[in-house]
Amino acid sequence: MTFARTIWWEDDSPAAAVVVIDQRKLPHEATTARWTTVEAAAEGIRSMEVRGAPLIGVAAAYGMALAMRDDPSDASLAPAGSVLAQARPTAVNLRWAVDRVTEALASVAVERRSAEARRLADGMADEDVDACRRIGEAGLEVLRDLHARTGRPVQVLTHCNAGWLACVELGTALSPVYLAHAEGLPVHVWVSETRPRNQGASLTTWELAQGGVPHTLVVDNAAGHLLRSGEVDVVITGADRIAANGDVANKVGTYLKAVAARDAGVPFLVAAPASTFDPACPDGDAIPIEERGEDEVLLVNGGPIAPAGSRARNWAFDVTPARLVDGYLTDRGHLAPGRLEPVLR
Amino acid sequence: MTFARTIWWEDDSPAAAVVVIDQRKLPHEATTARWTTVEAAAEGIRSMEVRGAPLIGVAAAYGMALAMRDDPSDASLAPAGSVLAQARPTAVNLRWAVDRVTEALASVAVERRSAEARRLADGMADEDVDACRRIGEAGLEVLRDLHARTGRPVQVLTHCNAGWLACVELGTALSPVYLAHAEGLPVHVWVSETRPRNQGASLTTWELAQGGVPHTLVVDNAAGHLLRSGEVDVVITGADRIAANGDVANKVGTYLKAVAARDAGVPFLVAAPASTFDPACPDGDAIPIEERGEDEVLLVNGGPIAPAGSRARNWAFDVTPARLVDGYLTDRGHLAPGRLEPVLR
Repeated sequence: MTFARTIWWEDDSPAAAVVVIDQRKLPHEATTARWTTVEAAAEGIRSMEVRGAPLIGVAAAYGMALAMRDDPSDASLAPAGSVLAQARPTAVNLRWAVDRVTEALASVAVERRSAEARRLADGMADEDVDACRRIGEAGLEVLRDLHARTGRPVQVLTHCNAGWLACVELGTALSPVYLAHAEGLPVHVWVSETRPRNQGASLTTWELAQGGVPHTLVVDNAAGHLLRSGEVDVVITGADRIAANGDVANKVGTYLKAVAARDAGVPFLVAAPASTFDPACPDGDAIPIEERGEDEVLLVNGGPIAPAGSRARNWAFDVTPARLVDGYLTDRGHLAPGRLEPVLR
Repeated sequence: MTFARTIWWEDDSPAAAVVVIDQRKLPHEATTARWTTVEAAAEGIRSMEVRGAPLIGVAAAYGMALAMRDDPSDASLAPAGSVLAQARPTAVNLRWAVDRVTEALASVAVERRSAEARRLADGMADEDVDACRRIGEAGLEVLRDLHARTGRPVQVLTHCNAGWLACVELGTALSPVYLAHAEGLPVHVWVSETRPRNQGASLTTWELAQGGVPHTLVVDNAAGHLLRSGEVDVVITGADRIAANGDVANKVGTYLKAVAARDAGVPFLVAAPASTFDPACPDGDAIPIEERGEDEVLLVNGGPIAPAGSRARNWAFDVTPARLVDGYLTDRGHLAPGRLEPVLR
């Protein structure tokens, strides 16, 4: 099973560009956006043309490659990293990718930096594809076990979009689902719409439909009823940042699913590559929670859902404490709580 | 402090009618709907021109009055009750109101039934106003204590709409808030938008704004972050039905708030009149959960939020187990879990 990628470098245009699937127009339009400068890349990340922690990291690496193509000098290197890192403050992959490219390029001669930045970005994209496949293999074991136990299609509840569209290929939380589907293991996904930006409704349903995976959309509020009534075998979400103690920052609403899953006795798993784990971050309290504009809450499909003059608050993430996580599906295996050494090295 | 009512009988029209605030057009338009037959009343309840358990009960009583005005015979009495009771299967107040009116009228002479039905409906409306005030007084004590303890405006998180618009006047969950605001106790309400029908965003914000009560809209997903970060002093919701063991059926998503409130150590209170308690229902498993059409999930403001061909499920309620409820604010006082005798008699 192969997927198209969500991001690629295009050489054969007037100016070489980074091309991405513009996720803001999905599911109604499948169009691309072109970034020709590092500022455009940062703006694309900020405005969520691309989203998903792994993809944001790769996008930042390609953003660095654009910066080096235009000005490979030392004077350009650090500012390019800054403008990218500030685009989404919560996403650790963004900072991780920027730091990795910046450090690697610092010791490269200026005239070779453009090619080297491009090589690094392509390599990180390939690494992401490989990491997602390993995450999928770790999760596939869980889905096989659940199917063997229940004899019915495995019922997976997910939140937001942590699939192909959040990565370069295949995804994190949905990677086990795609691998299961590919090998004929029956699986059905409950897709939580994920207000306020509805990434579940617009992106996860779209990519599952592309892949032919059975799925059903529900409002975020329905997760509790599903969990309590035995309709869910496992909850799998992605993560934007995981602290050293295992606390998970992910799309707002993740914590509600985790706490309800624990209450209902349903396993709650977090799928993420090693780059999402932040050894420098002791726990969830140290993770900054991005607050976004209130119009994302107040307007839907261009129309208001609240009276004129209403005010809203709009936190993009929440923190799920490690005590509510039953396992971490990573590119270094399925890790138990408290046993995160392989991804914290 | 007086409020306009949400429902009233209007004699001075060609045919007398029951008039209600049509809640489907709020917050953008404040218009009324007129019911001139029992079938129109049932359709108005089904289509949610009126909603909220207490108001549904009073609306059903007025629906019976319309039926008796048109045909007070025994042949009309039971069918009128049936058509009303079937309009919303989960709401116990509906069945309760219908049964109460039907039983009372059975022993009344046919020629007096129309006037008597009208008198019963008016009496139930007045009772609801009185019950809401008592619920508010029980909750006001809690808000006063919280304010004394924290010294800041009391931070109340609510779900759906259990205010004035859900009742005849004043409300259930919001009644303590209105009484606090009226006596100058500072209070701020976090309003959960309440997908899929957005009653929080469209109705609760509207009625709080009418009453001048400070409030902020959040997506349902944000409740966990709010609770975990100390932004909420108490969660108060209404209820559609409460089983004899204290399990609470309420708008889908209520359970997620209850389980997160417990996890965060924030008290979770349920506000409801005695008529919402169902002594004949042993526990939450015995409460039928209404499932509604998928378009409520798939379309927002008339536009799709998911790809064409997407399927959705849409449960209107969930069950919060009694073990997660810290107290019941009722018209017979503030009752502790397991001490529900006053409302189960």
